[in-house]
Amino acid sequence: MAKPARVLIDGEWRDSNADGSFEPADPGKMAPTGEEYPVSSESEVVEAVEAAAGAAEELERHCPDGVADFLEAYADRIEARRAELVEIANRETALPASPRLDDIELPRTTGQLRQAAAAARERSWSLATIDTAAGIRSVYGPLGGGVAVFGPNNFPFAFNGAAGGDFAAAIAAGNPVIAKANSSHPGTTRVLAEEAFEAVTACGLPPATVQLIYRTDHEVGKTLVSHPAIAATGYTGSRSAGLVLKEAADRAGKPIYLELSSINPVVILPGALRERGEEIAGDFQTSCLMGTGQFCTNPGVILLLKGEESEAFVDAAKTKFQEAPVGTLLGSSVLSGLQHSVDSLQQAGADLITGGAAGGGNGYSFQNTLLQVSGEQFLSSPEELQTEAFGNESLLVVAEDVEQAAQVARHFEGNLTGSVYSHSGSDDEDAYETIVPILRRKVGRLLNDKMPTGVAVTPAMNHGGPYPATGHPGFTAVGIPASMLRFGMLQCFDEVRDHRLPASLRDVNPGGMWRSIDGSWTQADVQ
Amino acid sequence: MAKPARVLIDGEWRDSNADGSFEPADPGKMAPTGEEYPVSSESEVVEAVEAAAGAAEELERHCPDGVADFLEAYADRIEARRAELVEIANRETALPASPRLDDIELPRTTGQLRQAAAAARERSWSLATIDTAAGIRSVYGPLGGGVAVFGPNNFPFAFNGAAGGDFAAAIAAGNPVIAKANSSHPGTTRVLAEEAFEAVTACGLPPATVQLIYRTDHEVGKTLVSHPAIAATGYTGSRSAGLVLKEAADRAGKPIYLELSSINPVVILPGALRERGEEIAGDFQTSCLMGTGQFCTNPGVILLLKGEESEAFVDAAKTKFQEAPVGTLLGSSVLSGLQHSVDSLQQAGADLITGGAAGGGNGYSFQNTLLQVSGEQFLSSPEELQTEAFGNESLLVVAEDVEQAAQVARHFEGNLTGSVYSHSGSDDEDAYETIVPILRRKVGRLLNDKMPTGVAVTPAMNHGGPYPATGHPGFTAVGIPASMLRFGMLQCFDEVRDHRLPASLRDVNPGGMWRSIDGSWTQADVQ
Repeated sequence: MAKPARVLIDGEWRDSNADGSFEPADPGKMAPTGEEYPVSSESEVVEAVEAAAGAAEELERHCPDGVADFLEAYADRIEARRAELVEIANRETALPASPRLDDIELPRTTGQLRQAAAAARERSWSLATIDTAAGIRSVYGPLGGGVAVFGPNNFPFAFNGAAGGDFAAAIAAGNPVIAKANSSHPGTTRVLAEEAFEAVTACGLPPATVQLIYRTDHEVGKTLVSHPAIAATGYTGSRSAGLVLKEAADRAGKPIYLELSSINPVVILPGALRERGEEIAGDFQTSCLMGTGQFCTNPGVILLLKGEESEAFVDAAKTKFQEAPVGTLLGSSVLSGLQHSVDSLQQAGADLITGGAAGGGNGYSFQNTLLQVSGEQFLSSPEELQTEAFGNESLLVVAEDVEQAAQVARHFEGNLTGSVYSHSGSDDEDAYETIVPILRRKVGRLLNDKMPTGVAVTPAMNHGGPYPATGHPGFTAVGIPASMLRFGMLQCFDEVRDHRLPASLRDVNPGGMWRSIDGSWTQADVQ
Repeated sequence: MAKPARVLIDGEWRDSNADGSFEPADPGKMAPTGEEYPVSSESEVVEAVEAAAGAAEELERHCPDGVADFLEAYADRIEARRAELVEIANRETALPASPRLDDIELPRTTGQLRQAAAAARERSWSLATIDTAAGIRSVYGPLGGGVAVFGPNNFPFAFNGAAGGDFAAAIAAGNPVIAKANSSHPGTTRVLAEEAFEAVTACGLPPATVQLIYRTDHEVGKTLVSHPAIAATGYTGSRSAGLVLKEAADRAGKPIYLELSSINPVVILPGALRERGEEIAGDFQTSCLMGTGQFCTNPGVILLLKGEESEAFVDAAKTKFQEAPVGTLLGSSVLSGLQHSVDSLQQAGADLITGGAAGGGNGYSFQNTLLQVSGEQFLSSPEELQTEAFGNESLLVVAEDVEQAAQVARHFEGNLTGSVYSHSGSDDEDAYETIVPILRRKVGRLLNDKMPTGVAVTPAMNHGGPYPATGHPGFTAVGIPASMLRFGMLQCFDEVRDHRLPASLRDVNPGGMWRSIDGSWTQADVQ
């Protein structure tokens, strides 16, 4: 076995002051990779936090142009090592090199970095607000310390702690990042961090702008998110580990943004099924099995109304699930978690329609699985029947009528998304109006006539939602510039002399950023 | 003794299902008032939470016009009972009827309610964001349940749970409120809630839009803020009680906005003192002793640089503090807390300049008090020397030089405000540039050449700051419309048909609200 990989602390790639090490697995081969990565000790994490806090003051002086230059240079460097990155990520995650990693996720990642650069440079994200009569001005600015970013297992690039959405948002808002690699793709993360650090150096940013560790135990993770000198945390991953970190951060008064779990209910109304049932079944199969179902926005619950159309839909979906190839899962823990969830759903009263057992594909795999339950049964065990099954599985809930479907919706937990398919005319309008006011409160994003898996990087996106989908219903993890606000503090200036104000609040506005002056948004100078 | 006051639950003034009762004191007479108020039981609080959740769905249909009408009608009703309200509040708090309660705080309160009404009606607070190409639109909307509002002891009107800033913001954002009166002015709060409920009824809002309880024990308070059907909490008050509620809310994944404590450092540089030292000493005395020092933004620490100017300032301040009348404190617990804090500061090394003992004024009172400590001593016990002394007291810290002053600033906890007085020319510019980048990170609002006690209700205000001043550095409790965002959820609509969108996101924009369409703010329709 090779020597453990080095960590990046305070501008130096160095041997970890480790508490131990771990060896990731190759999910396609179901075998260890032979690579070894360190588990960082408490003292190493504290060193990183303190280095980030030291870098924060200096980094603010590079805002926004130096930070924007860095994000763009980093995107270029990722593209320069594209083939290598795709190869490593494919090996570590078994996600398809093409079309997924090379054609979709990597361009999305560099696109996010460039959008973040543009937003930082343009400054309008910071919601500058000026009251000329009162002499009071405010704007969002950096938090004054490092942001810890924990990336999930399912997006080795786009949500990576050292390159993904939280990383881009935190840096663009002017904060150093301490990236915690996901243990399922540490090699991908190391290559990304190498390029990030080269770009940091090339752009003259403080060396501790980007740091990298690979894993910690729970106690050290708690130290990281609750240290007096940490500014905030972004976490995407399992609910159980996320809640451990949340408790520690909350206790210390440190903001923590969590994306925890979501079953993304999809309501399919009868008029839509009569009109285009086969097409919707196809949409469903594609969305549910994409990436072997390992999406935060995977459609995990389909809510139907009892009737012929729904029976036909279930039959069509069953056939499509059986015919579709079975993908490889990210690792053994995903496989065992999926099996456990499918078992739990059955114990709670769900019937197996198809699948239900491990195997059927290459490496770690599980049959494409559909379960079904009546609305009545769902209402008798709503908590158990909302068990997230992370992977290529979905639960069909068949309600007796619209009222019962509304009752089911009333029992939904907080979710990232909720979708409603309805007749293109008005056939389903009454049902829509009954169910959607309830569903709307439960989800961050409401969709019409489409599956939830696509998450466009647009300023209007909300990739968030009520707890337990996330830790706060007011923030989004995707969509620049809104996602940057998570990593800003509201800074107010009361009668502060013009030359001492940040550039974004001075009378003159040479860059033409949008500012709210005396209640009107404008790109003009203060008159 | 009279029968305990009635609570307002689910549209009914009724006898409380109480766990006990309490009798408030008249602070001017240092004697019980003879009035009795109930301590609500867990079942009563749960009933209120469930009624609010039920009202939330219906209330959304009254947004924004019905809610705005209510806020305006309520403001009118407060003015109609103005004399009675001022009389009760004066008796309960000993705050001066005039100029404080009648001339400043009551108009501020009705002004806030009317500003909130205007903001609700105008809708721009909700940051509507439209991406026409992607078909994705988002806006902040109601949370879908009740907001619990805990008002503090020091503002019987402007921060009252049933009429103050959090109340106005929560309602204007479309959420029912469960008001928890402060135990020091339950009678004032009851009269306010009577008028609020009359306005609710007159405007045809759901009866549970406003509810009132007077007190709970800690366990029931925790139930209130963490109940599955509560949406969020606004709390202004002591750090210890606030942290108990925070832990419960955090554990349940419920947003809680806290304004806990702040010592509001004021840095006074030598050039400013040479120029206008006597004037600044007057500003300081006025600000520190206003309302007997019982302001969240009371200047609790004055940071000076060693030298003749600072010695003269200390002498002047001492004289002014000795000559100023001693006000009445809000109650016996404020008096004992102040004595305890002054003792703690002395034990941590501060010298008494003047005052330091109870008495000197009418009712519960404490001598106007100044303490002093060297920068070196401060740095040796920074935590103890930042003990908040809520009342007419301030600590003068005299640093050896600018570098030591910067070190002192580096040890400041999160605060609501930080002020810097400097020479009107450039004499203090170097010191300013050394100290302020450090101070800026520690405070929500940075002031130049003024004391922090004035908190204007403007869109650019930040009455917030890093923990432990508040629970999150990104939000303000004062300043409409920004304060409303605390009580909104980000609602995204993905390819939702135009007629199903909320009015604020449809193509046509008849009210001319500000929206960000494809990256530009505009009042126009979608083209």
